[in-house]
Amino acid sequence: MSRTAGQVAPPQKLEVRLKILYNALCHTDVYFWEAKGQTPLFPRILGHEAAGIVESVGEGVTDLKPGDHVLPVFTGECKECRHCKSEESNMCDLLRINTDRGVMLNDGKTRFSKNGQPIYHFLGTSTFSEYTVAHVGCVVKINPAAPLDKVCVLSCGISTGMGATLNVAKPKKGSTVAVFGLGAVGLAACEGARMAGASRIICVDLNPKRFEEAKKFGLTEFVNPNDHKKPVQEVIAEMTDGGVDRSIECTGDVNAMISAFECVHDGWGVAVLVGVPTKDAAFKTHPVNLLSERTLKGAFFGKYKPRSDLPSVVEKYMNKEIQVEKFITHQVSFSEINKAFDYMLKGEGLRCLIRMEG
Amino acid sequence: MSRTAGQVAPPQKLEVRLKILYNALCHTDVYFWEAKGQTPLFPRILGHEAAGIVESVGEGVTDLKPGDHVLPVFTGECKECRHCKSEESNMCDLLRINTDRGVMLNDGKTRFSKNGQPIYHFLGTSTFSEYTVAHVGCVVKINPAAPLDKVCVLSCGISTGMGATLNVAKPKKGSTVAVFGLGAVGLAACEGARMAGASRIICVDLNPKRFEEAKKFGLTEFVNPNDHKKPVQEVIAEMTDGGVDRSIECTGDVNAMISAFECVHDGWGVAVLVGVPTKDAAFKTHPVNLLSERTLKGAFFGKYKPRSDLPSVVEKYMNKEIQVEKFITHQVSFSEINKAFDYMLKGEGLRCLIRMEG
Ligand SMILES: NC(=O)c1ccc[n+]([C@@H]2O[C@H](COP(=O)([O-])OP(=O)(O)OC[C@H]3O[C@@H](n4cnc5c(N)ncnc54)[C@H](O)[C@@H]3O)[C@@H](O)[C@H]2O)c1
Ligand SMILES: NC(=O)c1ccc[n+]([C@@H]2O[C@H](COP(=O)([O-])OP(=O)(O)OC[C@H]3O[C@@H](n4cnc5c(N)ncnc54)[C@H](O)[C@@H]3O)[C@@H](O)[C@H]2O)c1
Ligand SMILES: [Zn+2]
Ligand SMILES: [Zn+2]
Ligand SMILES: [Zn+2]
Ligand SMILES: [Zn+2]
Repeated sequence: MSRTAGQVAPPQKLEVRLKILYNALCHTDVYFWEAKGQTPLFPRILGHEAAGIVESVGEGVTDLKPGDHVLPVFTGECKECRHCKSEESNMCDLLRINTDRGVMLNDGKTRFSKNGQPIYHFLGTSTFSEYTVAHVGCVVKINPAAPLDKVCVLSCGISTGMGATLNVAKPKKGSTVAVFGLGAVGLAACEGARMAGASRIICVDLNPKRFEEAKKFGLTEFVNPNDHKKPVQEVIAEMTDGGVDRSIECTGDVNAMISAFECVHDGWGVAVLVGVPTKDAAFKTHPVNLLSERTLKGAFFGKYKPRSDLPSVVEKYMNKEIQVEKFITHQVSFSEINKAFDYMLKGEGLRCLIRMEG
Repeated sequence: MSRTAGQVAPPQKLEVRLKILYNALCHTDVYFWEAKGQTPLFPRILGHEAAGIVESVGEGVTDLKPGDHVLPVFTGECKECRHCKSEESNMCDLLRINTDRGVMLNDGKTRFSKNGQPIYHFLGTSTFSEYTVAHVGCVVKINPAAPLDKVCVLSCGISTGMGATLNVAKPKKGSTVAVFGLGAVGLAACEGARMAGASRIICVDLNPKRFEEAKKFGLTEFVNPNDHKKPVQEVIAEMTDGGVDRSIECTGDVNAMISAFECVHDGWGVAVLVGVPTKDAAFKTHPVNLLSERTLKGAFFGKYKPRSDLPSVVEKYMNKEIQVEKFITHQVSFSEINKAFDYMLKGEGLRCLIRMEG
């Protein structure tokens, strides 16, 4: 397990060592690479949207064996805690996303090292590596027939967006939906709205290039807040006789969160926040917007319990209910990974597939 | 219809003239009497929590006839609009609460006058008057056997609080509930929690006198934010291993709204806002509190559709499922109405019944 002196130690108790075959770059990797307004923890191996194969398993691992096809996930499912046992939550007490922790739970140490110096983990996945070690609760066994170069994108962004609509916003057939942010997450939220039978899907983004991408998904209604003098929530209210039935925010920008909330119809409107905000962001609204019977929710990983629910999301791809191909707009080999970062930073395309070599 | 020269004109199209027999003072009357941070509209006749008898009906009124026992309500139900037709909303487009309008819809004029000068209406009810005129959509026909000196309190505060819990927060049996504000609305929210089978009801108020009142309702867990150095949401999180399952805010204070939201458990917690905030209040929280799967909602009049649902709330009183007597802590005659205001301003007791004379 070495490459130019980098080491990946064997899996310990309840850990799995994976051979990573494909990655896709998600905006969350870029945030933690930029490390703006965060506690930076370097050197660390980024990467969390990926697919691979189990190479070896540690003590106590019974669900997985070498050769299993898997998706690593940035948030786990221990199946034992109050959250895992609740029908309502996927935020496992033990293995929920932890952006500050760079070590494994078992011994508080890293499995990565170079020249004897530790290299930190990221989101419990660190998939920008030929091999990685993850807690068994963060590894989802999937149908071995599923093509890993496609379903890798289901391990984060697409499930996040689609689940936010289908599992949290839950638009009724015929309802109107607004989606803020047309990255992979937002377009997946749009796909969820289409699957739920929405009558209108109003797409909001600041970047007009994204509208071109969105047209390939059959989307037809676009609003660029920069094209209007009045706040975008008012523009949407006018387009929809008082507001949309559901909105889903997939930007990470707190102003978009506020607009997404305020653009839902009073009486029954539900807004769902998905984007990851900066540390000092403040969501602000007049309480009357709530008293007039609007609902504000957040969704985490599309409310999917990773080990319990993701295998069936993969099956949805196998049954052609979800098309992930449209999301994969670029491909590079691992040695060209910086190109993937460039595409994301320029807002070009949606997901860049990164092929691991060797 | 005159008393010391005050006049109440006959009902016009789709209007009803009522003889008011009982009132109770609600905090909303006091706010509009103080008229802080509002557009004051005087002279106007306040009062909206009341019970009476139909005296006469205007053109087109078919549902009501003279002699019917009724509750006037501050928010109406036209039964025709998109909201009235929606299962999800009670915020009628035509007759929803309007705190600025002081005239009747039919002709944009008042039915009250004194010496030829108009006196404005309040919330479409203006029940601090022997006679008043209301839109038929704001008048609920109830069981004539129901004692009006008791069920009058169901026309606002108690239904608001109880419904916020039963119809919006919907705690499951065995769950933990926090209620902020122990006025009539908050104690009714507690009654709702008891009816839903909550395992714990944590009562929060700044006024220790309210705890004495609350004990009469069988409540046993009290938190006064003034007794703690840390924010009350943290106190509650410690008492409940991470937060309550549901919280209901019944204060009107925006800080209590924020605490009520932030004290619910991540993963599944739901907070419901009920209190009427000041015009310049801003609800503020870090979006991560939402992303970690908390839900924030507002409830308006307990999500009861007034004409459709209130008759069955009155029946709950008749079946002894609701005890309204505990809420009526004071009684005065109409000429002593200022005493009712004093009790409310001093935070003494819950509801003061006001007997109309003559
Ligand atoms: N909650 C979760 O479980 C979860 C999981 C994955 C990603 N995310 C988050 O979801 C968000 C979207 O991820 P992505 O990979 O699709 O990112 P992306 O950068 O590809 O897409 C974001 C889009 O939002 C647009 N945008 C930014 N500010 C806007 C505004 N004010 N109004 C309208 N549009 C605006 C950008 O132009 C861009 O097109 C990110 O914040 C990411 O961190 C959350
Ligand atoms: N949404 C609706 O449909 C509706 C209907 C009726 C009343 N209301 C509102 O509900 C609220 C309660 O009405 P009420 O008649 O019971 O009023 P009330 O004045 O009798 O009770 C309010 C209680 O809140 C407490 N309080 C104030 N600030 C607090 C804080 N920061 N933390 C904890 N407790 C605090 C007060 O001490 C008081 O005991 C008011 O805002 C009223 O306008 C709303
Ligand atoms: Zn991601
Ligand atoms: Zn767990
Ligand atoms: Zn009231
Ligand atoms: Zn209506």
